[in-house]
Amino acid sequence: MKKLIVVAFVLLATAAVADEGMWLFNRPPRAIFKQRYNFDPSQAWLDHLQKSSIRFNNGGSGSFVSADGLILTNHHVGLDCLQKLSTATHDYVATGFHAKTHAEEVKCVDLELNVLMNIEDVTQRVNAAVTPGMSTDDATRARRAVMNTIEKESLDKTGLRSDVVTLFRGGEYHLYRSKKYTDVRLVFAPEVAIAFYGGDPDNFEYPRYDLDICLFRAYENDKPVHVENYLRFNPDGPQDGDLIFVSGHPGNTDRLNTVEHLEFFRDYTYPFTLNSLRRREVLLNTYSERSAENERRAHDQLFGIKNSRKAYIGLLAGLQDPVILKKKADSEAALRQRVSTDPQLTSAYGDAWQTVHNAFEAYKPFAIEYRFLEGGTAFNTRLFGIARTIVRLADESQKPNADRLREYRESNLESLKQQLYSTAPVYEDLEMIRFADSLSHWLEALGPNDPTVKQLLSDKSPNDLASELIRGTKLKDVAERKRLAEGGKAVVDASNDPMIRIARIVDPRARELRKKYENSIDEPLTQAYSKIANATFKTMGGETYPDATFTLRLSYGTVKGYVENGKQIPWTTTMAGTFERAAEHKNQEPFELPQSWMTKKSAIKGDTPFNFVSTADIIGGNSGSPVVNRAGEFVGIIFDGNLQSLPWDYQFDDRVGRAVAVDSAAILEALRHIYAADNVVAELSRK
Amino acid sequence: MKKLIVVAFVLLATAAVADEGMWLFNRPPRAIFKQRYNFDPSQAWLDHLQKSSIRFNNGGSGSFVSADGLILTNHHVGLDCLQKLSTATHDYVATGFHAKTHAEEVKCVDLELNVLMNIEDVTQRVNAAVTPGMSTDDATRARRAVMNTIEKESLDKTGLRSDVVTLFRGGEYHLYRSKKYTDVRLVFAPEVAIAFYGGDPDNFEYPRYDLDICLFRAYENDKPVHVENYLRFNPDGPQDGDLIFVSGHPGNTDRLNTVEHLEFFRDYTYPFTLNSLRRREVLLNTYSERSAENERRAHDQLFGIKNSRKAYIGLLAGLQDPVILKKKADSEAALRQRVSTDPQLTSAYGDAWQTVHNAFEAYKPFAIEYRFLEGGTAFNTRLFGIARTIVRLADESQKPNADRLREYRESNLESLKQQLYSTAPVYEDLEMIRFADSLSHWLEALGPNDPTVKQLLSDKSPNDLASELIRGTKLKDVAERKRLAEGGKAVVDASNDPMIRIARIVDPRARELRKKYENSIDEPLTQAYSKIANATFKTMGGETYPDATFTLRLSYGTVKGYVENGKQIPWTTTMAGTFERAAEHKNQEPFELPQSWMTKKSAIKGDTPFNFVSTADIIGGNSGSPVVNRAGEFVGIIFDGNLQSLPWDYQFDDRVGRAVAVDSAAILEALRHIYAADNVVAELSRK
Repeated sequence: MKKLIVVAFVLLATAAVADEGMWLFNRPPRAIFKQRYNFDPSQAWLDHLQKSSIRFNNGGSGSFVSADGLILTNHHVGLDCLQKLSTATHDYVATGFHAKTHAEEVKCVDLELNVLMNIEDVTQRVNAAVTPGMSTDDATRARRAVMNTIEKESLDKTGLRSDVVTLFRGGEYHLYRSKKYTDVRLVFAPEVAIAFYGGDPDNFEYPRYDLDICLFRAYENDKPVHVENYLRFNPDGPQDGDLIFVSGHPGNTDRLNTVEHLEFFRDYTYPFTLNSLRRREVLLNTYSERSAENERRAHDQLFGIKNSRKAYIGLLAGLQDPVILKKKADSEAALRQRVSTDPQLTSAYGDAWQTVHNAFEAYKPFAIEYRFLEGGTAFNTRLFGIARTIVRLADESQKPNADRLREYRESNLESLKQQLYSTAPVYEDLEMIRFADSLSHWLEALGPNDPTVKQLLSDKSPNDLASELIRGTKLKDVAERKRLAEGGKAVVDASNDPMIRIARIVDPRARELRKKYENSIDEPLTQAYSKIANATFKTMGGETYPDATFTLRLSYGTVKGYVENGKQIPWTTTMAGTFERAAEHKNQEPFELPQSWMTKKSAIKGDTPFNFVSTADIIGGNSGSPVVNRAGEFVGIIFDGNLQSLPWDYQFDDRVGRAVAVDSAAILEALRHIYAADNVVAELSRK
Repeated sequence: MKKLIVVAFVLLATAAVADEGMWLFNRPPRAIFKQRYNFDPSQAWLDHLQKSSIRFNNGGSGSFVSADGLILTNHHVGLDCLQKLSTATHDYVATGFHAKTHAEEVKCVDLELNVLMNIEDVTQRVNAAVTPGMSTDDATRARRAVMNTIEKESLDKTGLRSDVVTLFRGGEYHLYRSKKYTDVRLVFAPEVAIAFYGGDPDNFEYPRYDLDICLFRAYENDKPVHVENYLRFNPDGPQDGDLIFVSGHPGNTDRLNTVEHLEFFRDYTYPFTLNSLRRREVLLNTYSERSAENERRAHDQLFGIKNSRKAYIGLLAGLQDPVILKKKADSEAALRQRVSTDPQLTSAYGDAWQTVHNAFEAYKPFAIEYRFLEGGTAFNTRLFGIARTIVRLADESQKPNADRLREYRESNLESLKQQLYSTAPVYEDLEMIRFADSLSHWLEALGPNDPTVKQLLSDKSPNDLASELIRGTKLKDVAERKRLAEGGKAVVDASNDPMIRIARIVDPRARELRKKYENSIDEPLTQAYSKIANATFKTMGGETYPDATFTLRLSYGTVKGYVENGKQIPWTTTMAGTFERAAEHKNQEPFELPQSWMTKKSAIKGDTPFNFVSTADIIGGNSGSPVVNRAGEFVGIIFDGNLQSLPWDYQFDDRVGRAVAVDSAAILEALRHIYAADNVVAELSRK
């Protein structure tokens, strides 16, 4: 839809020649490529990169790097699988893993991968379902119905995973069809000590020294898949100044947001989120400190919490900087000025900002309760999530597909059950303290007189209730989950499981809040942002890309360093630098190198580029994205952005913001000389 | 004042034969001692214990243990001094300290100790100043004036530190006169790894294995003081079942609080406090992880934060338990029933609960702002505290003593300047991040439209403002502090120091809030609780003690274990147990033993009692309190209470709650065989 093509021009205006954009594969910025880099990729080049790219459904990106389905991603993307495969006696997170043969490869318990096969624009059909004058309630329902239906039809027709993706916040709707892999096996992982070298202190920072990689293999019918599209592994990595491309799945950006929307983030959303994250971090830190086994059990969760905490602190700091927000305010004022001086524009789009304002005024009174109940902040245990899914699945399954809550639409049930029936270990002690703490948080925030709080906690303390439910529930047993979920509503209704009972008590109010959210916030924002996007286009013109939506995007940029506080930060670090940093810190955690590295120090070429930075436009979700050169060869893998890149969420700026990647040369050097992973090296080197 | 004697009877009623009470030295529970333990201490016994007891003015307790002014306290009480004496090149916290001669003893930079010499009841004089019908504003002022005046008169007359102490929340006022020591020198400290063995996981827990001791010496005129009253050191420690006494300075309890007051803690005070503590913990954890030097710089602060966080979580969990609160509600209802059925009582005390209710309703709208501005939560840097003290000192000094804010009364100026001119190191980077984070918290909580927030942060981010102020202020220099503080108002007014400027901007609103707090909360609560205390006495009768006020108290109890989840927890641990615990945890932090212990394992008697528990009624502030036997001999030193003792803040219960102490036998064994501290051992052994 051409009319939306330059939504982001307002943003581009502030950084005119920046390498900005998370572009749609079906709408790459050809003019920019051509004009700025004299690069004119063929459709085959684009298709090949698209089909070599992989979405990790639990959040992250990756790519095929051999014809036999070998997959390269980040260690911290693979961590979820590594954690779920580990036990007290074999801890793949700490020790790493290396399968020397296919037979030694270990199957992940619940991992789902998607490869985007094609895209169909279904904007007209979706928009046609929502007619002018509809109440927001009817509009919400109509939009959901048509999306659920399109997906079901596509799934039935193609057998491919089918998702209607909302782009430009409702300006366009594309149907994404993906090939799904659910038999994924672990091939290689280094020790977390080098994969996440420098830990929390170095996270979102640069210079950096991380071998943040993990290798998997996709299987079908118990055999490695054969794929046509995979990236050729370039053994040398990129050079300073090189044009590079990043193909991955940025999760979420907020660049179209109005200033008031960002202020809502600053004053409500982020403080609440950070407050929850900090209390979980303290909780899991204290749990982990009690013993090495506790540390192991909570490792993945604690990493995720710290990672989010650091990111959100950066996001909030940006919004608390009046200078940054003023830039947004100025460009918004300019747009509104243009709209208000043209009667046609005023009549078509003039009310959009008021709609956004109204939506947040409507949201404020129940935002906290919504996040606790429907968002699940009050029930921070996987077992409650399982119970809620079972209860809702029973109810939703009785409705026609078109009327169901999005996550229970027929086309999504297979993926949903993949998670529901996961055999990932459940640790009672850990679930207990998480649940108790979140109940306590809920009680603190809503107070003892909140009706739902009262139902659950009027005669029991959070500790006692959590203990009773976690000990009492049978949902730790996958067979019991299956019995209930497959049994349907009658069986679920008959269950006396205490966690099911609690999920049932909470559900009416949670659904009520969700409906209220969808009708008074979600749908009005969809309509308002569609107008703002159109107003921007009409007044500005040009090429553009939509905000990130955890769907496949193409970014591009230049490999280059930057200047920070007057100091030149080089484009790359070296493997030798890692040993220097360890020595500076007396090899103490989190700067301690694993034994494998200490003993092989002399075996590796010290000047091998290790991590490098580029101006490619990325965000969370891009972790594991392949970095490719003009030839489409794999030259690195994105694993982080520096602190200065965090505000990219709402505004791109590549003066000092950078994406951080592991160099393909370092990957090869480490696999070859530190891990003696000759089978992997051979597979990567095969042409 | 006899009429107040049984305030706590309501509480005692729920645990009839419990060893409850933090008794006044001028009103010990002689009847209970006699009846329950057949113990009848002489006045000399009491005086000796009183004058051997020491208050650490920075929060904590201790005692004289030799005629030459040797003082024994906890390591975590001495930590503040150890931290301030340490540098990047000598870290007494990590390595410990041992002066073999007086010449090697190192002077603390700002430590003040107090020894209570006598007590005078001044209730009548204070109460006479507040006449019936006075507005709360006038009452607040009159009460403050008479207290400031009494203290000044006493100081002039006796030369002793003089504090009017509010007891029974305003039921009584006693004048405490103390001998002050400001030349205090470090004699011995073990490594923090054994002083705080088990770290945060073991804090507030039992069984325990901590050598939580630290030795100082008081000096006068550059010579060790000679004291008449000191505790004889018993080399064997107590036995199971022994009656023991604890003489120390419990900081604060809330046992007289109404249920509504406790609910305010549950719903407002504690969540806010915990939220602040958690964010500071995360902040300092991340700072500390960056390097060993950072860890050293933040050690003391981080310990304090974690310690408070764990305590407050316990306090809040207690109040979130409906069973605990119901007990309080039942006894309160019984009291109110008795008052309401007796017209005389109704007329005298009947409005007290309504007054408490009104006070909290008045407080809620500005409680958060009060804590940020006057409480200083918005300005978490020592340099702001210094600036505020200088600005206020200049203003308050111009007023007559009777009219000054309490902390600027003449009798307190010496102690105030001891802190103000402290040469304790100031680390710019650490102050910077603390300040920025607290400003950010303030902005989050009050929003950008709060007038004071606007004045400071409308054109600068919290990071930028903090950086500008911390870098720009000259208050890091003690000479500059002196120049301003001694220069008086004209000199302070003329200062362009950026931190002074900010303190000046904030002060009008902060003072306004303080006045509002004093008039609409503090004074009404004082009047209401005085009535509640009297009502309790009239209807119940008996002996009692006031809530803790960081003044000297006498507790008593029995050395005994307890049953937890069906398991018998022994009254004592052994030194050998420490090595077992370290082995279980592969000697990993925080269960790592220092080298000194590892090498001397075979030199010590493994069955030496290490830590022991008793039923003595203690709370924070009691840390470092001597535990004495019937003979008044030192048999141990309090350093913790178990988790189950945390709710003692509002309700004592010794079924499973216990005070935890280091056994005198273990102290001797460690000093002798691990640290070869022969000089200290000899001094302790002298009769």
